[in-house]
Order: sequence, then structure tokens, then C-alpha cells
Amino acid sequence: MNNPPVAEIVAIGTEILFGQIVDTNSQVLGKLLPEFGIHHYHRQVVGDNQKRIADAIKLALSRADIVFTIGGLGPTEDDVTREGIAEALGEPLVVDEPFAEKLKKMFALRNVPWTDSQLRQAKRPTCAEVIENPNGSAPGLICRKGGKIVVALPGPKFEFVPMVEDSVRAILAELAGETILVSRVVKLCGMGEAMVEEKLRDLFQSPNPSIGIYAHPGEVELRITSSASDSSTANELIDPVVQEIQTRIGKNIFGFAEVTLAEAVLDLLRNKGQTLSVAESCTGGMLGEAITSVLGSSDVLLGGVISYSNELKMSLLGVLEDSLMEFGAVSEQVAREMAQGARERLKSDWAISITGIAGPEGGSPEKPVGLVFVGLAGPNHIKVAKHQFRGNREFVRRRSVAAGLTMLWQHFGSARA
Amino acid sequence: MNNPPVAEIVAIGTEILFGQIVDTNSQVLGKLLPEFGIHHYHRQVVGDNQKRIADAIKLALSRADIVFTIGGLGPTEDDVTREGIAEALGEPLVVDEPFAEKLKKMFALRNVPWTDSQLRQAKRPTCAEVIENPNGSAPGLICRKGGKIVVALPGPKFEFVPMVEDSVRAILAELAGETILVSRVVKLCGMGEAMVEEKLRDLFQSPNPSIGIYAHPGEVELRITSSASDSSTANELIDPVVQEIQTRIGKNIFGFAEVTLAEAVLDLLRNKGQTLSVAESCTGGMLGEAITSVLGSSDVLLGGVISYSNELKMSLLGVLEDSLMEFGAVSEQVAREMAQGARERLKSDWAISITGIAGPEGGSPEKPVGLVFVGLAGPNHIKVAKHQFRGNREFVRRRSVAAGLTMLWQHFGSARA
Repeated sequence: MNNPPVAEIVAIGTEILFGQIVDTNSQVLGKLLPEFGIHHYHRQVVGDNQKRIADAIKLALSRADIVFTIGGLGPTEDDVTREGIAEALGEPLVVDEPFAEKLKKMFALRNVPWTDSQLRQAKRPTCAEVIENPNGSAPGLICRKGGKIVVALPGPKFEFVPMVEDSVRAILAELAGETILVSRVVKLCGMGEAMVEEKLRDLFQSPNPSIGIYAHPGEVELRITSSASDSSTANELIDPVVQEIQTRIGKNIFGFAEVTLAEAVLDLLRNKGQTLSVAESCTGGMLGEAITSVLGSSDVLLGGVISYSNELKMSLLGVLEDSLMEFGAVSEQVAREMAQGARERLKSDWAISITGIAGPEGGSPEKPVGLVFVGLAGPNHIKVAKHQFRGNREFVRRRSVAAGLTMLWQHFGSARA
Repeated sequence: MNNPPVAEIVAIGTEILFGQIVDTNSQVLGKLLPEFGIHHYHRQVVGDNQKRIADAIKLALSRADIVFTIGGLGPTEDDVTREGIAEALGEPLVVDEPFAEKLKKMFALRNVPWTDSQLRQAKRPTCAEVIENPNGSAPGLICRKGGKIVVALPGPKFEFVPMVEDSVRAILAELAGETILVSRVVKLCGMGEAMVEEKLRDLFQSPNPSIGIYAHPGEVELRITSSASDSSTANELIDPVVQEIQTRIGKNIFGFAEVTLAEAVLDLLRNKGQTLSVAESCTGGMLGEAITSVLGSSDVLLGGVISYSNELKMSLLGVLEDSLMEFGAVSEQVAREMAQGARERLKSDWAISITGIAGPEGGSPEKPVGLVFVGLAGPNHIKVAKHQFRGNREFVRRRSVAAGLTMLWQHFGSARA
């Protein structure tokens, strides 16, 4: 056994290789391993082919203490994970008689006709035990041999996830490493990935805790991970690093863990008892959608206007025809009038407006694709920021939404300072 | 070179192993390979570790003709894919001077201060050429050595996908195999997965073309795949199957290939020269966002109102206070008034309204979470449908959006018949 113990996931299914489904099962399991101090360095995906499954398991066993296979346990001919495991372990497949009886009874009870192919699901390598699958007919398997463990889990998500939460957690607890990993996530806005990296360069050198950096449209995420014998020691290692990050770029930290930028903005306004509305042109509802995806957003968000046409910019938001004629719909002046109009007509304390050219068409030399004006109106406050984003339609829209939320968040941030 | 040629994907990122993100990039690329008759049997995921990246690439090169790495090309210290490829190929890393110049100019143009870490992005193994990345600073790389090819692509989705559509397609076309797979996708709405399966049960038995079925919120996708020596033979195998599907459930087919339901609805209205507006409560902008994600939607969509609060339902849409008092905001009557109000006040030919309880809170025995009313108003037309969806907040909202679009699509569908 390695110390810390090492796991490896082998996801099985031609439909994963061919991209017909996304392998979210490996994600669920991959998230769980660090909680038990179990490391993992590799993941493999192979199609429904016995030889390749066996080879993948052998490779995994050569570098890990516990190997999880996911998928290929069903009753059909192309479900050959059992055979692959048996081949990798050099064991014959036998019918697990007690389970076969149980399976037959289950089918009788559900009035589903029994076919011989169903019996495949009761087969196991001689060394294996059956793991119960409360939501499906194919059971999991746990095979212990030569100090190593192979655990086979079914692929359908609604069978897999409950088994992970139950049986797999129990298996992992048995193996749990002496050293566990704890992670804390710090979320930043209003600062690009390269600049964050620049400001924290020396911190990135540390092996424990280590820092990972991930960029999302308009946001940067830092993940500080420490390993220690217990979670309080691990947290003690993380605390000073987070403190140092706060000292250096604290004015860009909008939250921790799973908090979204929309949630952070909603919290700020909720604490002040203030309300928000939105006026969206090129984002067409994406800002409203992001805000209302947060449970309880109705305390703060009154609503919004999707003013895609110029007529609606005038009739619903009171944008002046002269402004549209003189400056065009994508202009600082129109963004300003949209924000002010939304604030007045929707009777909110604050309003965010977005008008821009999301592309890929509609750009010009003076107003290229990606040009976006974001406005913020509030009590005695009106400000418009001009952005030039690069990227496709979706990216420009996502960046615009993040820019609108960041603008409001930063306004309160600087008010706090 | 194998015949057919073989590819392998190596996805790089500790954040993938640990389940912090789902590897959708491998899915996008995995889907594309069969179109070019390129087989692939394995996929690997490794963390941000130079030695393990190099080993994974060596393993992949031992069984594939072309290896794609995804991720780890950014400017930060933990982006070590370049180093891993150089190690696997036994080549030193050099600075690509023309690209370094270009990069510096790009930063100057955008007024972003140049940091030395950015120069990492201009490094490449000596045998490599740079692949342009129109949406980011880190370029891709293509390395040709000993009859094999290693292609390195950046991890951020908004950079990766456009490069796949452009440069990677060109590289794959060069390699294309003798037997190709052709897929055609048929998209359905207004019919559940189980019912589609029931209606097409016998067709699912065929090995060539084979049919895959995939469910999305409010939609079902059928993928008919055939293998043949050329695309016209492959298409001849697919044609009769699609025809049979059309005969059986044609009234639920809203499109083919990448067409979205929003696009299908926009096309119907555009052809009639008619316009649309939306009135959203629980979806908070998601319907508007779905429609405006389609390029050119401004021909048809005038805009919308996000009437999250009751006050805005009255002031912006003219919903009667009496209706809100008597029936509640989530009711057939309010959905009707929202649709009619949007149509009249936003001066569109058609309006879709959505009001419901997205959850997880806010439900009651009479009005449980997932209860959604969807209204459709048009010339001499007003109709409201009541839905009871099951699932989390996001799923209920997605189903609601699909229900609104389906309602409009089916109205025209039955008008066509």
C-alpha cells in the first residue's frame, strides 16, 4: 500500500470516448477521494472492449492501491467490464448463486420476464464480493487480491451516485490515508488571471499548502489545498495563506467556496435593504438569469427589461430617440439612459445596464464586435464603463454579465474601504 | 500510421482529476474524430505534473498516430504541458521569436502590462509550429516527429472550441481514414424519452445505422450513425431511417443537427415576418437568454420583461391586482395576463409568458415546487398550459423555457398540418 494510498478511476464506455455523454461520474468520485486523504494522479477512459478494459485495469493496478471501474456492468453483450476485471486479475468468472436467486425474484416481483442475458449481472471474479445497487439490477463488485482492491460500479448516474454516497464511502473510510487534503476556494473579480499570478507569484512556490488558479469569464478562482493529519491542522496551514492573499488583493475577493458573483452582489444589497433591476440589450436576459439562479434573489431583484429593439429602449426605459440617433444603441450615453431609466421606471435602488455588440456580426471599425458599455445607476450615482472583449458571442455575453455584477460589487467594495 | 488512423486525447489538469471541473473539451473533440474516420480507443486524464504528462504522452504515442493534449498552456507556473511534450519527444524548448513579438504587441495594444511569465506562452519544442488561438494569448502547438503528431490545445472552453472548429478540423482532414462514420441528429420536442423509445423500438435493433437516444430538459435527441467508405454511401444508409422516424413521429421533430429549439421558433416567425416578446417570472431572463443566444434573433425578438416582483407584473405588463390577489402570481390567469400584456405593451405579434415555482423553496401543498404556467398570446390566440415539473431549480427553469418555446413551435406546427 502506498502512503498516502493512491486510487485510479477507469471509466468504461464507447459513448464516453465518442462524446455522446460527458463523464460526470468520474467527477463525483474524483471530488470525494481527497476527503479521505486518498491521492489520485491518473484517470483513464476506455471503450467497451474486454482486452482494453483488462489492460487499463492492469496499468491502473501497477500504480494505484485501489482501482475504480465505472460502467459496463449491464446485461447486454457489450457490457464486458466483469470479463475485463477477471482477465486483469487472472481469475475465472463464476455465478454468484445467492445473488442470481435474488435477481430472479426481483424480476418476478416486477413482472419483468427473465432472460438468460440477465444472468450475466450475477457473475463475478472468484475473489469478488457483490456490492448492493439499490437503484438497478446490476450490482457493484469489490475484488481484493494481492493487497490491491478493484471496485466495479455501474454507469447510470442514478445508480452510481447513491452507491458512491453509501458503499464507496465505507470502502474509502477503510483505506483512509493518514494525511488528508483540505481545500479552500477564494473567488476574485475585476482582475485578470495573469495579474493575480503576478501579485501572488511567491505564494505559488509553496508545496503545502499549494495554490491552483482557474480562470472563468470575468472571474478568477484560487484553490488553496493543504495536506495534514487532520482537518484542523490542514486549516491552520491554509489560514495564513488566505490572509496573505487578502492583504495583497483583498479588494478583489468577492467570496469563498461555492459563492457566485451574483450571490455576493445580492448579499451586499440585501444587507443594505436595497433593490436591483436590470436593463439588458446584447445579453438578452443572461444577467437576469444569472441573478435569479440564486435561491432567494426575489428579495433584491425586482425584475428587468430586455430591451433588444430600439423601440423598447425608448418605450420601456425612456432612452431618448436623440441619443439613439446621435450616439447609436451601443454607446456610453445609451447605457447611461438605460440604467437610469430602469432604476426610475422599475423603482429599484440600483440598476445595471448592458448594451454592446456580442457578434459575430454587427461590428464596424468604430464599434467592433466585443464593444460593450455597462452602466450602473444608484442613489446619487451614475457610471458607465466601456469594455472591449475578445471572443465568441457566448463569451462576450458572459464577460458582459460578469462586468455588470463586478461594477456593482466594486462600488460597494470601495464604499466599504 | 495505423489504418484506420488512431487518435488519443490526454486531458491535463489537476482540477479535472479532483472533479472541480468536468472535462467537456474531450467530449467536443471525441465527437469530431469519427467524422474523419479516425478511431480512438483510450483517453487519459493527468494532473499538472511534468513527469506524468510526459509519461501519458509517451503511452499515447505508443498506441496512436495523433495525440491531442488539452490544457496546461497558460502563463502560470503550473502550466507545464509544453515541458511535458518536450520531455516526451526528447526535444528542448525554445522561444518562438515571431510569436513572442506578436504577444508583446497584443499586450501593448490592450494596455495590459507585460510580465515575464507571459513569455512562457511563446515557448515550443523545436519541432513544433504554433497554432493560432484567436480567443486567448496561449497558442496551440503542432509537433510532427517520427511519423507521429502531437497537438497541444488550450484548456479554456472559449479558446478550445473555436480552435477545434478551425485548425483541428484542418489537421484531422489531412489524416482522414478509409471508413468513416457519419451521424445525423434529429431533435424532438413535446414528447418524452420513453415515448420516443416506444415508438421506435424496432429501429433501435439495427447495427448500421445505429441509433442513440439522449434526453435533455424538454427535448430528445436521436443520433443516427452509419459507417461506410464514403459519406454519400453513409448518408444513403441513414436516409430511410430518418424517413421512417419522420413518418412515425414527424410532428415532434423541430430540427436536425445543431439546430436549437429557439432557432427553430425564430425561423418559423421570421418566415412569417412576425415578432416575439417574452414575459418571465421564475425563469428570470433564461428564455430571453436562450433566444438571444441565436445570432440574428433581433429580427424577431423585440425584447421582454423580467417581472420578478408583483409590482412589475402590474406596472410593466398590466397584470390586474385583482388577479394577483385572487389567483396568486403562479396561476393560469396571471400567465394569461402576462402574455397578453407583453404582446400589447411590447407591440409584438407573439408573446410567451412563464410564471412558476422553481424551488427549492416557495412551494405549498396546493402549489408545489415545479408548478409552472406557460402562456402564449398571438393574433386571435391565447392559451395557457399548466406543467408540473420534477427536479432542482435549474432543471425546472430549463424545462419551463423549453415548454414556452415548444408551445409556440407546436402552434405553428399544427397550423402547418
